[in-house]
Amino acid sequence: MQKLEATLSHIQPVDQLLAVRVQARLDTLTKPRGSLGRLEELALRCALITGHERPSIAQKVLFVCCADHGVCAEGVSAYPREVTAQMVYNFLRGGAAITVLARQFGISVQVVDLGVDHDFAPQLPGLLQHKIGRGTANFARGPAMSRDEAIDAVETGITVAEEAIQQGAQLLGVGEMGIGNTTAATALLSVLSGIDPEQLAGAGTGVDESGRQHKVAVVRQALTCNRPDPSDPLGTLACLGGYEIAGITGICLAGAALRVPVVIDGFIATAGAWVACTLHPAVKERLIFAHLSAERGHRSVLAALDVKPLLDLEMRLGEGTGAALGMGLVESAVRLLNEMATFTEAGVAEKP
Amino acid sequence: MQKLEATLSHIQPVDQLLAVRVQARLDTLTKPRGSLGRLEELALRCALITGHERPSIAQKVLFVCCADHGVCAEGVSAYPREVTAQMVYNFLRGGAAITVLARQFGISVQVVDLGVDHDFAPQLPGLLQHKIGRGTANFARGPAMSRDEAIDAVETGITVAEEAIQQGAQLLGVGEMGIGNTTAATALLSVLSGIDPEQLAGAGTGVDESGRQHKVAVVRQALTCNRPDPSDPLGTLACLGGYEIAGITGICLAGAALRVPVVIDGFIATAGAWVACTLHPAVKERLIFAHLSAERGHRSVLAALDVKPLLDLEMRLGEGTGAALGMGLVESAVRLLNEMATFTEAGVAEKP
Repeated sequence: MQKLEATLSHIQPVDQLLAVRVQARLDTLTKPRGSLGRLEELALRCALITGHERPSIAQKVLFVCCADHGVCAEGVSAYPREVTAQMVYNFLRGGAAITVLARQFGISVQVVDLGVDHDFAPQLPGLLQHKIGRGTANFARGPAMSRDEAIDAVETGITVAEEAIQQGAQLLGVGEMGIGNTTAATALLSVLSGIDPEQLAGAGTGVDESGRQHKVAVVRQALTCNRPDPSDPLGTLACLGGYEIAGITGICLAGAALRVPVVIDGFIATAGAWVACTLHPAVKERLIFAHLSAERGHRSVLAALDVKPLLDLEMRLGEGTGAALGMGLVESAVRLLNEMATFTEAGVAEKP
Repeated sequence: MQKLEATLSHIQPVDQLLAVRVQARLDTLTKPRGSLGRLEELALRCALITGHERPSIAQKVLFVCCADHGVCAEGVSAYPREVTAQMVYNFLRGGAAITVLARQFGISVQVVDLGVDHDFAPQLPGLLQHKIGRGTANFARGPAMSRDEAIDAVETGITVAEEAIQQGAQLLGVGEMGIGNTTAATALLSVLSGIDPEQLAGAGTGVDESGRQHKVAVVRQALTCNRPDPSDPLGTLACLGGYEIAGITGICLAGAALRVPVVIDGFIATAGAWVACTLHPAVKERLIFAHLSAERGHRSVLAALDVKPLLDLEMRLGEGTGAALGMGLVESAVRLLNEMATFTEAGVAEKP
């Protein structure tokens, strides 16, 4: 709890005075004012998050937070639970979608085991082993984890992010892997946003409509059984869980405290980010929401959080695939701010 | 005319039989089916365009087609005409937005002078000098160019694209620079799409509402004066011009003939692409429309053309900036198709 409290105490609102200087520079670059649209907004946001008029985001790290979910016992997923560990090996070998995109964009991938139900060999390159448990308990029957475990998982996220930043990371991304975790995210986001589970539950990895209705029923049962208190985000996180979701919360908090932008992936990552936003009011403006997922509930969740994603490519894979594309756009935005010539430098006539 | 006719004769519809094999591969990759959304569509499209189940798009070239416009005499632009040539120098020095994005995505930029009203030194590295004239005539008073000039400009586009492809280019992009060219594109797209100029004319580089109304009036005058025939795309192109727009038409045709995907930028590039689509029915499926521009008319034009852009970042700069981002997404899509592991290769359990 000490690390979490220390981290929260370091989070500050962005310095709006800097915005004037950054906007002035954007307006002297060789383009009609505002013509780079959301890339200009993004460049400004990165400057404000980092506190630098000319931010650097050359070193990029994306965390794939992985864990298993006891709620799989309720038959909520189209894939068997073993796939979580199998996909961890796929990440480490570079054959997964996120590793392909990370290679393209020069992003270093760190896979974090926060609770996969599998024994990995002690020293697997690329895998950060911080197992809190071998999967959460089934939250349809009781809490997914204890409050201490939830704090432990959040602090693990803080630790891995702090270490990456200490080693030079200037832009973070978060994604996840965990069979069953759209159900956990649906439950968590339903409590935090007040939106009914029926509106939030989606196909996940590919259940049909009757499977989706079953997810809704399981989430309703979980809410009845656990009675989570929306004004207690850590307690809600403990009830409905996801060690990997808690890890994402921690990464968001560490990025916010250390002034490093964090790019959020889709539906499940948004659940972790929402918890972080609830823990401190200045977190949200320090996060970048990469994309609108095709997962059913994401649109209404982002609207409720009042954020506008950058991309809408009808993706619903998770892993951080949307975040990786978003990190590419962040790089575009920051490069434009830093590398474009001004009207004076280029000898181009300004608008009279 | 010979080169244009030869090129048109080489354009073929894509082979739909290949689609079955490519889709089968996409469905064996380690992800839920369809979960990469529009990136899967894009990978399939690149396979069909190139005729290869595993296409390669490692070598990427973007053409910035540049020319001046006689219609500037009507006071349609917020910037002076000299800016076209000044921006060419900015492209060559690497200080413009498109050159910044091209560096990020490993795209080689070729600046093509099809009719800039400026004498460039004979050997400027990065500049392809194919001047048809020193700017078009004022199309509010008569045709922008002769039919022969229009064909000459289209064939110049074909030539530069053919040469790039011969030198190894596997993915092309098109953008443009030319003070006054949103007015030319508005006139051209109005005739080709049948949409009223009032709905299509936008702020361009930044005119206010009265300036926009003036653009509408100038376009109406041009249509009355030239009486372009929508069933004659080359004649319409000659009347309403844009040497650079004609060049873009040629690049689209060459890409289609040589099975190289061409990524289209915003409003003005769409005008050139539309002419190409009208010249041969199999061109459209061989083009990729990168983004929805914030330029007023682009949404209705893309809807009329029945194409769905990849990005909506409220950009309206031109130069190929949207195309460059789109080329990054094409690379993502093709890399995913080529580099992801299958369920069998990765030892991941499939959906039961």
